[in-house]
Amino acid sequence: MTNPILEALTQHRSIRQFENKSLSPHQVTELVDAAQHASTSTFSQQYSIISVTDPAILKEIAKITGHGWMLRSGHYFVMVADQYRNLKIAQENGTDPYILHSTDKFLASVFDTAIATENIMVAAESMGLGGTIMGSILNDPRQMIKLLHLPEMTFPLLGIALGYPKDKPELKPRLPKIEFHFSNHYDLGENFDQQLLDYDQLLSDYYRSRSTNGRTETFSHHIVSELNRNHNLRADLFSIIQEQGFMAH
Amino acid sequence: MTNPILEALTQHRSIRQFENKSLSPHQVTELVDAAQHASTSTFSQQYSIISVTDPAILKEIAKITGHGWMLRSGHYFVMVADQYRNLKIAQENGTDPYILHSTDKFLASVFDTAIATENIMVAAESMGLGGTIMGSILNDPRQMIKLLHLPEMTFPLLGIALGYPKDKPELKPRLPKIEFHFSNHYDLGENFDQQLLDYDQLLSDYYRSRSTNGRTETFSHHIVSELNRNHNLRADLFSIIQEQGFMAH
Repeated sequence: MTNPILEALTQHRSIRQFENKSLSPHQVTELVDAAQHASTSTFSQQYSIISVTDPAILKEIAKITGHGWMLRSGHYFVMVADQYRNLKIAQENGTDPYILHSTDKFLASVFDTAIATENIMVAAESMGLGGTIMGSILNDPRQMIKLLHLPEMTFPLLGIALGYPKDKPELKPRLPKIEFHFSNHYDLGENFDQQLLDYDQLLSDYYRSRSTNGRTETFSHHIVSELNRNHNLRADLFSIIQEQGFMAH
Repeated sequence: MTNPILEALTQHRSIRQFENKSLSPHQVTELVDAAQHASTSTFSQQYSIISVTDPAILKEIAKITGHGWMLRSGHYFVMVADQYRNLKIAQENGTDPYILHSTDKFLASVFDTAIATENIMVAAESMGLGGTIMGSILNDPRQMIKLLHLPEMTFPLLGIALGYPKDKPELKPRLPKIEFHFSNHYDLGENFDQQLLDYDQLLSDYYRSRSTNGRTETFSHHIVSELNRNHNLRADLFSIIQEQGFMAH
């Protein structure tokens, strides 16, 4: 019942160690092509793609994200929510751009960006590449905006580090479907606590037994440690989104 | 240089006409499996999937979206941004959930939801199915929340109507890469106006010549008509997001 695409989708793992080999311009074009053919909300194509190849900019992004390993990737994309192009179209046609500044249109551009990002990842893996989607560029969007010369009505959302995989981490077990996929109504059920304990055990076994970076951690521990991070980190995200002209209403 | 997955990704079209045939439970499980194996921000698995099979709920969703054709789909998913599960984990561990209510964690759950949505679409197409991602459930999130019994810290973001395709629309041309994919710095270039005119012509030719639903429309017309919609539509989106407990700071 399976097929090569289903097989590939369920074999995804994040790759952070790469061979010393860059992607070819042709490969990059194929990835952008795959991105562009994804669904886009109301066919408004509300995102842009920036290939970062300048070593100085890459170093700055590595500093922002805290992930030095990205410097050894074979190609780096920044995926940008983008209503600037459509703002220019509105201006050239003398149309009130009010709607572009809405929460709705910001969300639409986030959908577009994330959907295209996943197409790039799936396409890359089909070409024997691997990589990691990096939300960590949000540690300092103002600096990202400066580095990439991003105009108003754009926002840097996700980085993608890609390359030829040097390792193949084990597949990380996901939440049990009974706590994740519901029928008609949202319902974690009466056995959520027990299901979570079982999953905590499963994930802890995975972390302990994996060949590299072994540790003792359950899903619950992981969530708790995420929530115990410094409250000041990314505290001004909403202000910066608004500074760029998004979510004015 | 191409491969079957690249080929499939660049052949995506939205399908809105379906054969009268439901997806099997096994197919639905495979789709959820493909979704769950996608990347998730900080491995926090911040979304849930609801299969809507109750005809009464489907009818209500068709009313909200204005898309009656979805009632003839073979399966309907609602993709839900979800920090409720993680809120319960925080509570059970006596951890301050402050960070969960941040703009950052809302964005992370939107990323997770959209990325998983695209995996479902790619997986479905690999199985000979087709469909449409529907942002139109955002026309009335309060009603969606009520229909699906969504708790605090969840938000219905996207619907997915899937089924066996009854038609095969032509591929819609995308924006020229020169206005879409940049190197190191965002730059539409000096020829944006001319590029846009060319693209407007290309898209207008596509609309005029396509076999069904032919019309005269350029990309510029399309964006302008999007912006001329009623300003009151979805005007309370941000309030509802906050009512659900998201983006408190």
